[in-house]
Amino acid sequence: MVLLARTTPLEEVKKPSEGLSLFFIDFDKSAPGLDLRKIKKMGGRAVDANEVFFDSYRVPKDTLIGEEGQGFKIVLHGMNAERCLLAGEALGLGYAALKRAATYAKDRIIFGRPIGMNQGIQHPLAAAYMDLEAAKLATYHAARLYDRSKDDSSIPQHAIGVACNSAKYLAAEAAFTACERSVLAHGGMGYAQEYHVERYLRECFVPRIAPVSREMILNYVGERVLGLPRSY
Amino acid sequence: MVLLARTTPLEEVKKPSEGLSLFFIDFDKSAPGLDLRKIKKMGGRAVDANEVFFDSYRVPKDTLIGEEGQGFKIVLHGMNAERCLLAGEALGLGYAALKRAATYAKDRIIFGRPIGMNQGIQHPLAAAYMDLEAAKLATYHAARLYDRSKDDSSIPQHAIGVACNSAKYLAAEAAFTACERSVLAHGGMGYAQEYHVERYLRECFVPRIAPVSREMILNYVGERVLGLPRSY
Amino acid sequence: MVLLARTTPLEEVKKPSEGLSLFFIDFDKSAPGLDLRKIKKMGGRAVDANEVFFDSYRVPKDTLIGEEGQGFKIVLHGMNAERCLLAGEALGLGYAALKRAATYAKDRIIFGRPIGMNQGIQHPLAAAYMDLEAAKLATYHAARLYDRSKDDSSIPQHAIGVACNSAKYLAAEAAFTACERSVLAHGGMGYAQEYHVERYLRECFVPRIAPVSREMILNYVGERVLGLPRSY
Amino acid sequence: MVLLARTTPLEEVKKPSEGLSLFFIDFDKSAPGLDLRKIKKMGGRAVDANEVFFDSYRVPKDTLIGEEGQGFKIVLHGMNAERCLLAGEALGLGYAALKRAATYAKDRIIFGRPIGMNQGIQHPLAAAYMDLEAAKLATYHAARLYDRSKDDSSIPQHAIGVACNSAKYLAAEAAFTACERSVLAHGGMGYAQEYHVERYLRECFVPRIAPVSREMILNYVGERVLGLPRSY
Repeated sequence: MVLLARTTPLEEVKKPSEGLSLFFIDFDKSAPGLDLRKIKKMGGRAVDANEVFFDSYRVPKDTLIGEEGQGFKIVLHGMNAERCLLAGEALGLGYAALKRAATYAKDRIIFGRPIGMNQGIQHPLAAAYMDLEAAKLATYHAARLYDRSKDDSSIPQHAIGVACNSAKYLAAEAAFTACERSVLAHGGMGYAQEYHVERYLRECFVPRIAPVSREMILNYVGERVLGLPRSY
Repeated sequence: MVLLARTTPLEEVKKPSEGLSLFFIDFDKSAPGLDLRKIKKMGGRAVDANEVFFDSYRVPKDTLIGEEGQGFKIVLHGMNAERCLLAGEALGLGYAALKRAATYAKDRIIFGRPIGMNQGIQHPLAAAYMDLEAAKLATYHAARLYDRSKDDSSIPQHAIGVACNSAKYLAAEAAFTACERSVLAHGGMGYAQEYHVERYLRECFVPRIAPVSREMILNYVGERVLGLPRSY
Repeated sequence: MVLLARTTPLEEVKKPSEGLSLFFIDFDKSAPGLDLRKIKKMGGRAVDANEVFFDSYRVPKDTLIGEEGQGFKIVLHGMNAERCLLAGEALGLGYAALKRAATYAKDRIIFGRPIGMNQGIQHPLAAAYMDLEAAKLATYHAARLYDRSKDDSSIPQHAIGVACNSAKYLAAEAAFTACERSVLAHGGMGYAQEYHVERYLRECFVPRIAPVSREMILNYVGERVLGLPRSY
Repeated sequence: MVLLARTTPLEEVKKPSEGLSLFFIDFDKSAPGLDLRKIKKMGGRAVDANEVFFDSYRVPKDTLIGEEGQGFKIVLHGMNAERCLLAGEALGLGYAALKRAATYAKDRIIFGRPIGMNQGIQHPLAAAYMDLEAAKLATYHAARLYDRSKDDSSIPQHAIGVACNSAKYLAAEAAFTACERSVLAHGGMGYAQEYHVERYLRECFVPRIAPVSREMILNYVGERVLGLPRSY
């Protein structure tokens, strides 16, 4: 488990984000002072989520990542890359859902013809595809900008932030639309786990909610791009 | 289990909907000729769904409901009432979700104030409430029309059908919107089963999909109200 | 022109809403001290909108409506009724648009069949119809509650406010959806004034925007119904 | 005026798209056999639209564009480029609208603070911005693919078609969203011509409707990408 912990007391630093260090500790239920409680959740079951309680837990010194006191900086450094990562996760779910929905819509015959011949089924899927494609281009654009910024200091930090946050937002919303429509295109079958699309729908809430909410991205874009005042 | 079975061969009836009878049989895994396989599904776990296979299964005569050959008529008779019932189920889910979301938005403090003070949280919930209220009025209207039609034969059958189908459609869509926004209003907590809203979201797909799809309702309204040609 | 003017100076009243009186003055360009400038607008051309400037304009005493100092109360009194009125205006536009769209979709033949046979045309119109019906029920409900409240003081004032504001909101949004889809159902013809639907679309922005914005209604419902804190 | 006219009778060609030629004729009301009637429309007033009637009109031979009988091919050749062009028109309208809305939301003070401080105003504009950005990337992608295809015959024709049609669709829809929200962000002022956003809203229907409808693009993507059967 990667742990961000305060190593210099709040009173001794200038900003709350200073004096924090990053550690890579054992995720060990039996470690003294560490209490883990699994959270039951809607999806994302391939990966645990836990409530974590520390009580006089001692962090071994050799688990330090980077330099002492640089924890928050390191976390920040990865934030934009993480946005692109989550965008990718969302896109994958969206395309997988559409693929299954298209296959089902071709194979499933009602009233003597495949249901995909009905525009009520076909059009929502086609529109979802175009949204996914646009979100994919936004994700590639953000990742490219992020990569380039390592060698090119002229790229403003907030431009990268806007691109990466937008990619995450657009991909997660497009994925949600694709997954939801894919469930509905399956009719009653969409509710059965066997057809997988209900799982994709549950999964795609992770990139919608995490690691930053849609509302905070809208605030960020509203302030940084549109120049509107802070709303909260 | 209520079983609709053909009791007069297809060749001997005028319309496929004739010659069907309704039975109330034991849902018994050990009965000879009856094979039941539970379907794992997205939600609705208080009630089983099963694949049912019949192989030389004998239907006991005393399980007949109503008269022989009248099965489809009996089913039809209950259809509009069932639409109202499912609308009610959807509305309940929607209101329950909104109640939890409003409570959470009042209690959860971020940046020194309840998150419900942010219009990004408050407005989507308020709009969802108004949609639910309108769907509730549509459901009461449909149920009233259906009830009155028993004593008043001047109410055209298709007017009842339009009202009941519309109520189911509107309630299920409003519930979905309310549940989805309630999950998002909870942020990461919305993904945890403990806050219940993720379950409401999964549940509300039942009235969206069943017992008739959204697409078939749109066809019905398009033809019966707008006078457009059959599209399938 | 109905004019709300301060007749008791702000310093001499307890609340800003006191000391205002209502007058019914001549809307006369040649009156001394009154300057009127027509506003060119998107629609609503059957009714003028004007910028009005007063400079030492004298209000004739006999134009007073009701009692002196009661102006704001009188305005408030009519507010809920006005919400229902505007809801009605919106509904009329929405139904008129749908009627034209349905007629066009039946008559217009492309690829050898009426375009209304395509679900891509039919379904959006059918869904818009159901939304209008629900908004109509919400409008009747609000008007009934408002009427009854004259004789029944047990109906809480805010319940009437919620019902009337919701009706205005729902009707205006449903009308917008109906008008926009009706324009699109007409294809290129929807852009020609001859088919009227583009005018309905322009008109329906009036009840969307006036006499109270959508955002203020969402605030009202968020606070009064969901119990969320004031956001502005 | 560019005129596509049949120069070889239908009976003498193999496919209806053969035997057509392209001409660049004078758009001259007084020319014998040519009758022009202006169409009043919702917007796009910088450019005329006309009903054109031909009655024994003689096309001068020297107005031929390209070779005789190649008219349809020439038109087809420009179609994908035109998609990108219209996408660009839509994007410009969307960005122009957002810019005005952001300026207004910063300057307009209600309840002692700029209205842009309200998330009810800020978030819809921020979301519209991200949609426009994604559509812009889709448009650049399509234009690049189209340009490259002149020298690179390995790019499949339908891939260019999908990219260009998607760009037009995404840009027009994003522009509509941006324009509509910009009108609403202006409140009552959005209805006045003086603030321009109502005009942008009217204009953006052109790229939504023309030169190909949203429904035909959805059909194209549904068939070419998702492999679904033709629905009409």
